[in-house]
Amino acid sequence: MNLDEIRKKIDETDDRLLKLFSERMELCEQVAEYKAKNGMAVFQGAREKQVLDAIGEKSAPKLKSASRLLFSQIMEISKCLQTERLTEYQGVKTAAPAENPVIACPGIRGSYTEEASFRVFGKNARIIYSDTFGEVFEAVEEGKADYGVVPIENSTAGGVDGTYDLLGRHDMYIEKRLSIPVKHVLAAKTGECAVKKVISHEQALHQCRGFLKEMGCETEAAENTSIAARNVSLSEYGGDTACICSEHCAKLYGLTVLKKNIADSSDNFTRFIIISNKLRVEEKADTISVCLSLPHVSGSLFRLLTKFSYCGLNLTKIESRPMPLRIKALMPDRENFEVIFYLDFEGSLLDPSVGKLLKSLEKECAYYRVLGNFRDLDKESGV
Amino acid sequence: MNLDEIRKKIDETDDRLLKLFSERMELCEQVAEYKAKNGMAVFQGAREKQVLDAIGEKSAPKLKSASRLLFSQIMEISKCLQTERLTEYQGVKTAAPAENPVIACPGIRGSYTEEASFRVFGKNARIIYSDTFGEVFEAVEEGKADYGVVPIENSTAGGVDGTYDLLGRHDMYIEKRLSIPVKHVLAAKTGECAVKKVISHEQALHQCRGFLKEMGCETEAAENTSIAARNVSLSEYGGDTACICSEHCAKLYGLTVLKKNIADSSDNFTRFIIISNKLRVEEKADTISVCLSLPHVSGSLFRLLTKFSYCGLNLTKIESRPMPLRIKALMPDRENFEVIFYLDFEGSLLDPSVGKLLKSLEKECAYYRVLGNFRDLDKESGV
Repeated sequence: MNLDEIRKKIDETDDRLLKLFSERMELCEQVAEYKAKNGMAVFQGAREKQVLDAIGEKSAPKLKSASRLLFSQIMEISKCLQTERLTEYQGVKTAAPAENPVIACPGIRGSYTEEASFRVFGKNARIIYSDTFGEVFEAVEEGKADYGVVPIENSTAGGVDGTYDLLGRHDMYIEKRLSIPVKHVLAAKTGECAVKKVISHEQALHQCRGFLKEMGCETEAAENTSIAARNVSLSEYGGDTACICSEHCAKLYGLTVLKKNIADSSDNFTRFIIISNKLRVEEKADTISVCLSLPHVSGSLFRLLTKFSYCGLNLTKIESRPMPLRIKALMPDRENFEVIFYLDFEGSLLDPSVGKLLKSLEKECAYYRVLGNFRDLDKESGV
Repeated sequence: MNLDEIRKKIDETDDRLLKLFSERMELCEQVAEYKAKNGMAVFQGAREKQVLDAIGEKSAPKLKSASRLLFSQIMEISKCLQTERLTEYQGVKTAAPAENPVIACPGIRGSYTEEASFRVFGKNARIIYSDTFGEVFEAVEEGKADYGVVPIENSTAGGVDGTYDLLGRHDMYIEKRLSIPVKHVLAAKTGECAVKKVISHEQALHQCRGFLKEMGCETEAAENTSIAARNVSLSEYGGDTACICSEHCAKLYGLTVLKKNIADSSDNFTRFIIISNKLRVEEKADTISVCLSLPHVSGSLFRLLTKFSYCGLNLTKIESRPMPLRIKALMPDRENFEVIFYLDFEGSLLDPSVGKLLKSLEKECAYYRVLGNFRDLDKESGV
């Protein structure tokens, strides 16, 4: 046979496969109805194992793993269909946006986080400055601020550990997300002394590592870039100490810019999230962030992604991180390196099929929480 | 029909499905042979789309996404079978273990990393101490040391960014992995002064955050816990400065232990890797670590996991991290938040089916590298 002839045969086989598959799904629906009437669970592990073992025995040796995989997927798809039919979803309750909001921002004036806040809430935003990321979360939790702004990811250094920790420890929601280009400069009180020491936030030092190595001078970590700039301006250090911050920040504190564009990568971005203590879903929301735990069973992640694939959802991020102590405390039988997954995918809770999927995950996962359903502002600005 | 009757019907349908599936796989094999003879690629995207579109049109509306998912999986399984048949795999070339090896360790005597080195190479191991993680990698790269030992993950704080960066920048292999319980103590030169300042590595400060908050004293980051201990012992600081380190380390530098078990979590572990510039695979190797890039196509991760599932491989870790600059430079068309995936799974390169799978990934992924195939020593010790 030539290629076209074989493909014609394949197409014929596929037609028969599709017909049989439809019959099987019809039968599965009958099972689902029976189970619903008799108050039985949709998932029955023993029956699944029985089906897979029978398939394994009946299939040709060279097709054993292929057949097992196919039938485990058929059963998975059947569960997706049943979930879609049987799950009731009333939509999501969402709060109205805060009017004339107060924004909690870590650090002091002149930070990149402040810049992100201005972008979202305008130049006249009412900002209160907190010492730490933790205090930003607390301010929002206690209602002292309507929103908080914190960095979550950097294009060079990766996830901001502290923010992930805090998301695990507080019941906050992500309401918006945006990226700010990070354009670091080296600045000092005057341009007259040779620089012997550079202070800045550790991520900024990390981002300029190549430049700093070449300079060969001492470094010191500061709480953030704007505190570093203020301290240099206040002469807490000698004239031979410089800082790394934004050009805007250097000007704000009356510093002299010694060198621009000192980051190792010219396309350096920091991603910020806007947090709130209420779940709000805008009509234009396009990204859903969830965190969940998965059982330590071979293939549990694969089965999860099968569900996403069934709903046509595109996963844009996946990250396993150590489980926060607060969550671990709820699950004392977990092992040391037990992780939770942070998943981002494109979609809206206003879409019933997405809502149903997430509702089913809530039942299946030992730990599950929606972190938010928000607009990724980067998609608009083309960043 | 009752449940048993419906299930009997399902079993009959499954028998027919299995038979048809086997026929389809037989036809796919003929396609593969044809393609091999005529030098054509196994994967042909246009044909796949054509098949899926036809299936979508023919299936009942309520089964549209189910059918598309089923047939995309059938084609994926077919590719797995073809890869298994057509890929030649000569096994892995592996180097002999270094005799009487020299070990590069970051920091100075008394560190947790030193403790990890002693566990693996014995108390008489020949250790050279480097200032930074980067210098450990360089020492191994330049042949000054046979192995390097660095932390890679902590059960509270997550991945060690610096180590992931270095793995992306150097062609090193992971040869072993083990966890060490981290039991921090607060130590000072004498027990006589009230503690006003605590210095330690930032991860140690992070792990004792609750304790430090209660103490309410100033903190300062040091390069690592043992350098903090040494500096406190040398009185670079006043008597009111304490450090956080291990009990062993405090004793080594003649410090007084003020308080034991000060970490927020009592089951705090740090995971270390042993790196080498040669790929060595022990017979007992049970964990494979790879890093790879995936195209920005809906479902590319799902398809990858289908392959793993086909080979029966259990994924134990997945993490997407920003792409290191060195790798990004090879792929100039990538976007800002382009990631690479770090995957760990159970298996051995000595197993031909695993070897073939990885060989096929090497062809398919724009970036792909085996980071190692090693023994996870935690599995033996039951950590």
